[in-house]
Amino acid sequence: MSQVHICEVGPRDGLQNAHQTMPTGAKKAWISALAAAGLREIEVGSFVPPKLIPAMADTAEIVRHATTIPGLKVVALAPNLKGFQRAIEAGAHKVTFPVSASRKHSESNVRMTPEQMVEEVRKCAQYPHPGVEIEGAVSTAFGCTMQGAVPEEDVVRIAAALAEFCDAVALADTVGYGNPAQVRRIFRRVREAIGHKLEGAHFHNTRGLGLANALAAYEEGVRAFDSSLGGLGGCPFAPGASGNVITEDLVFMFESMGVSTGVDLEKLMVARKMMVEVLPDEQTYGHFALAGLPKGFRAAA
Amino acid sequence: MSQVHICEVGPRDGLQNAHQTMPTGAKKAWISALAAAGLREIEVGSFVPPKLIPAMADTAEIVRHATTIPGLKVVALAPNLKGFQRAIEAGAHKVTFPVSASRKHSESNVRMTPEQMVEEVRKCAQYPHPGVEIEGAVSTAFGCTMQGAVPEEDVVRIAAALAEFCDAVALADTVGYGNPAQVRRIFRRVREAIGHKLEGAHFHNTRGLGLANALAAYEEGVRAFDSSLGGLGGCPFAPGASGNVITEDLVFMFESMGVSTGVDLEKLMVARKMMVEVLPDEQTYGHFALAGLPKGFRAAA
Repeated sequence: MSQVHICEVGPRDGLQNAHQTMPTGAKKAWISALAAAGLREIEVGSFVPPKLIPAMADTAEIVRHATTIPGLKVVALAPNLKGFQRAIEAGAHKVTFPVSASRKHSESNVRMTPEQMVEEVRKCAQYPHPGVEIEGAVSTAFGCTMQGAVPEEDVVRIAAALAEFCDAVALADTVGYGNPAQVRRIFRRVREAIGHKLEGAHFHNTRGLGLANALAAYEEGVRAFDSSLGGLGGCPFAPGASGNVITEDLVFMFESMGVSTGVDLEKLMVARKMMVEVLPDEQTYGHFALAGLPKGFRAAA
Repeated sequence: MSQVHICEVGPRDGLQNAHQTMPTGAKKAWISALAAAGLREIEVGSFVPPKLIPAMADTAEIVRHATTIPGLKVVALAPNLKGFQRAIEAGAHKVTFPVSASRKHSESNVRMTPEQMVEEVRKCAQYPHPGVEIEGAVSTAFGCTMQGAVPEEDVVRIAAALAEFCDAVALADTVGYGNPAQVRRIFRRVREAIGHKLEGAHFHNTRGLGLANALAAYEEGVRAFDSSLGGLGGCPFAPGASGNVITEDLVFMFESMGVSTGVDLEKLMVARKMMVEVLPDEQTYGHFALAGLPKGFRAAA
């Protein structure tokens, strides 16, 4: 039986880009509901300066809550050593570091070149972090709103540099520029370069290609996907546009194909309802939520 | 250079399921705008009894208008010989006949078994129709809201029966139950049975899998796709759910993969604006329309 592993990133990538703030108590309840639906990995927050992203100011408290949920792998994002230290202190099981393959995006976003950012992650990897996984996430790997096309060589080079000292490497279509042909090509090239260290795929649904890209990546052997419930979050670079690939639609696609996700779609709808109630003015997406299960549908065993 | 052929079905499948009616003059202008965007085939209406579907009462007039547009293949749907005769009289270039693979759907929808419906289409094929193409469309080929699963053998059998006397056969996921693994499997089986007579794929986006299914069909060699602008139309069997696969997102997917559609996305947005202005209360879908073209995007040559 085929399986995929889905990491819910709504509490981080979704809430970070939402217009409304979710109170800490509601976040905790939502994360618990997501875990109860069968999600075994959740990116719960980001250790960035609270002044820059106030919605992430409670990340340490959220991590501490999430680590009390049995069987849940708790992920946090960190952009630098200081964030990494806070993540370790809070008890995160895995920390993901975004490194932009786009020079322009990197310089504008973190005021470092991609190479300098790789060195920052290397510094983190050298810092004692017993039991904490490190993921290097190559962002803007499929294009960039500032730079336009991103050379595939740059993606391969940064992925290879990160693979030297990270436990795993992911490729992220940060702004929703990717297409299925490109996804197949780039995942194949990076896998040739770094082998099994290439794990995750992080797609956005900005232009509607999220599931098609996930399908292409799956067919290239990818088994770990990021997604966010209701496609929460939008895209800071494309006003009105949608955010991450939609968890419930992704789960439905895989389950209907006979690929097990471990996620219960009905319980996922409970978590969606909870989110919509707390963020009533936030735009949410997703077709599965409107249509429900097909008659006689059976989830993958 | 790879190419696909897109048939816009919004004026038929979209308007037939819309809550608002589009006036005849607006329909004509909209169809002209769709053709101006580069769509070379449009399903403009349905020759069903006007009492059953009032929105299609002007189909003969619409067909006559559409046939004045140079280079456009004008398609109409007909459920029986009477409809076929009206389509020929109006000057349609191609007539598509839906034959449900689901026994329950067929009996409820046209009060005929699938086998009786095949015989009805055979009767039409035997009626003189110089220069008019006949397409047999196997509907509910991927599942049915009434029956649930539809045996693949039934789909293959009906497709094979239609291939005997139709110019082309299409497979339709009428209610949005299909998934990419199933799409690959069924298209492969039907192609083994009827070879090059298998042409079109008609997907709905009811559960968000429209593009992923189109990608799977493309990779199985399908080069003709139905879609509707803005995903207009909804699904009569799933209130609130979306309709056909979305033309602009489908065009964007293929063009970004380097597969030419012949459609100009900016002109398509003009046709979308026109539709939205005439049907202001109708729910429309699509992510491309919200996000626009990526920076530096080049359409397939």
